[in-house]
Amino acid sequence: MQTIGLQRFTIGLVQMSCSANPEANLARAVDRIEESARSGAQVVCLPELFRFLYFCQREDAALFDLAEPVPGPTTEALGALAKKLGVVIVAPVFERRAAGLYHNSVAILDADGESRGLYRKMHIPDDPAYYEKFYFTPGDLGFRAFDTRAGRIGTLICWDQWYPEGARLTALRGASVLFYPTAIGWHPHEKEQWGAAQRDAWRTIQRGHAIANGTYVAVVNRVGHEKLAPPPGMPEPPGIEFWGSSFIADPFGVIVAEASTDREEILLAEVDQQRIEEVRRNWPFLRDRRVDAYAGLAKRYLDDDTP
Amino acid sequence: MQTIGLQRFTIGLVQMSCSANPEANLARAVDRIEESARSGAQVVCLPELFRFLYFCQREDAALFDLAEPVPGPTTEALGALAKKLGVVIVAPVFERRAAGLYHNSVAILDADGESRGLYRKMHIPDDPAYYEKFYFTPGDLGFRAFDTRAGRIGTLICWDQWYPEGARLTALRGASVLFYPTAIGWHPHEKEQWGAAQRDAWRTIQRGHAIANGTYVAVVNRVGHEKLAPPPGMPEPPGIEFWGSSFIADPFGVIVAEASTDREEILLAEVDQQRIEEVRRNWPFLRDRRVDAYAGLAKRYLDDDTP
Repeated sequence: MQTIGLQRFTIGLVQMSCSANPEANLARAVDRIEESARSGAQVVCLPELFRFLYFCQREDAALFDLAEPVPGPTTEALGALAKKLGVVIVAPVFERRAAGLYHNSVAILDADGESRGLYRKMHIPDDPAYYEKFYFTPGDLGFRAFDTRAGRIGTLICWDQWYPEGARLTALRGASVLFYPTAIGWHPHEKEQWGAAQRDAWRTIQRGHAIANGTYVAVVNRVGHEKLAPPPGMPEPPGIEFWGSSFIADPFGVIVAEASTDREEILLAEVDQQRIEEVRRNWPFLRDRRVDAYAGLAKRYLDDDTP
Repeated sequence: MQTIGLQRFTIGLVQMSCSANPEANLARAVDRIEESARSGAQVVCLPELFRFLYFCQREDAALFDLAEPVPGPTTEALGALAKKLGVVIVAPVFERRAAGLYHNSVAILDADGESRGLYRKMHIPDDPAYYEKFYFTPGDLGFRAFDTRAGRIGTLICWDQWYPEGARLTALRGASVLFYPTAIGWHPHEKEQWGAAQRDAWRTIQRGHAIANGTYVAVVNRVGHEKLAPPPGMPEPPGIEFWGSSFIADPFGVIVAEASTDREEILLAEVDQQRIEEVRRNWPFLRDRRVDAYAGLAKRYLDDDTP
C-alpha cells in the first residue's frame, strides 16, 4: 500500500469560461475554488491558461505582456487561498522565465500554501488558431509527480493528452491521478462534420491513459465561444467554441463524473488508493512491460532498420 | 505519400469459435478465409491460437504436443491458400522453437504464398485461467512491420493490446494497420458485475492506439464458452466465455466495423492511405513527440529519482 498521502481524497475540477480581463478570471477562479472546497474538494484543478482568453488564436508579440514569473501574482494569490482553505490547487500559469523565454506551466500549490513544484508543458501544438509554438518553449522539467497533503499527483497540459508516453512516465513516477488542464474546442466550420468524432477521440485516448496505467485521469477544459479582436484591417475570425466536457475517469477508464459542453460546472470525484490497488492487481499491466524492448520509443521514427 | 503497397486495400477479420479438433479448426479457418477473399478481402487475419481451444486455462505439460515448428503444417497449409487466393494471411501459430522453448506467434504469409516474417508475442499474461507464462517464452523479435503485396502491416497479439508502447513501436516502423489476434473473454462469475466495463476498457484502449498513432487497428477475437476437461479428480471448471466483439477502428479511432459478442462473423473494412495521410496532417501527433524526454520508458518504475 502507498504510504504517502491519504487513502482517499476528493478532487474538484473547475470548468469555467474566461474573459478578456485577467483579474476578473482570477476572481472567478477563486470563487469556484472556494465553492469546490465547501463541497469537499481537497485538490482543485483549473483549466489551462485560465487567466486569459485563449490568446494563441493569433500570433502577437505584444501578448507576452500577459506572462508573469513563477512565483508571481497568480501563484501568490492561489497559494494564499490554498492555505486559507487547506486545499491543494493545481494552478496553470503563463510563465515568463526570462526575456524571450516563456512556458505554458502548472504550479502545484500545497494545502499549506507552499509550492511543491512546477510542470512545464512538454508537447507544444501548432495548428490553425492554436499557434502555441510561437508562444511557448517546450518544457525542460520532464514528466513529474508531486507529493501533496492529499497524495502524490501528476499534471500534464492539453496537447500532452494525445501522448501515451507522457501519461506513462507520470504514472511511473507514482502519481495516483493525472490532471490535464486543457483548452480545446471546435472550429465552427468543422463542428457539424467532425465535432462529435473529435470530442470522442479526445475522451477515448485519455480514458486509455487511465486504463493503461491504472490511475485516475482528471481533465478540465474551458467553455465558451471565444473570438479575439482581429488585427487592424483584417476580418473578424470565426473563433473557437471550447467544448467543456471535463471528466474524471477511474483507474479502469470508467467515467465517474462528466460535465456539459457549454456550462460552467464543478466536477467532484473521489480518488481511492484501494481502487487503484484493486484494478492493478486484477489487470497487472505494469508487471509485464517489456522494458528491454522499448528503446525505439526514444527515436523519432524507425525507418533506419535499428532493432 | 507511401510508395509501398496499395493506396487502398480491404482487410477481413475471421471471428470464429474453436473446437478441440485442430484439423477441424484449420478447415473452418480455410473456409472462412475463402469466404473473406470472395467478399473482397486482400488481407485476412485469424484469431490468436485459432487451431485450439484456449488451452492456457490450465497448466499441463502434455499440451506442448500441440505446438509445431515455423515453417510447419499451419504455415504450409495457409501459405498455399494465400497463394491460391492471392491474399495475405495473418496466421497465428503455437510455435515450437526447440525442446522446452515455445512462443505464441503470428506468421505473415504474403499473397505469393511466401512468409514475410514472424512476430512473437512480446507481453505475456498470467492471470487465473490465462496461464500463458507457463506456455510461452516472451518474444525476442521486437515490434515489427512487414511489407506485403497489399501494404505494410503490423501485428501484435492479445495482451500486447494493453500496452501503448507496442502499438507505438509498430506504428513507428510504418505499419498502416495494427492487427491484434486475440483470445479474451469473461469469467462467468465476473460477467454480470464487471463484464461491460471489461469489454469497454478493452475496446477503448485499442481505439486509443489508433488515435495516438494515426493507424488502423483491427482486432479479431474468438467466440464461444470453452470449458476444458478437468484434471482427474477435480471439479469441472467454469470455463471462459470469449466475448467476440472483433472490430476495426480507423486512424481517428472511429469504429468502422464491429462484430457481435457471440456469433461467428467476417468483418470487412478498407484501409485507405489517404485517410491516414489526412488524419495525421490535421492531428500531427507524430511531429511533436518529445523523444529527448522518453528514456524513462525503458525503466520498470521511476522510484529512484532518475530524471
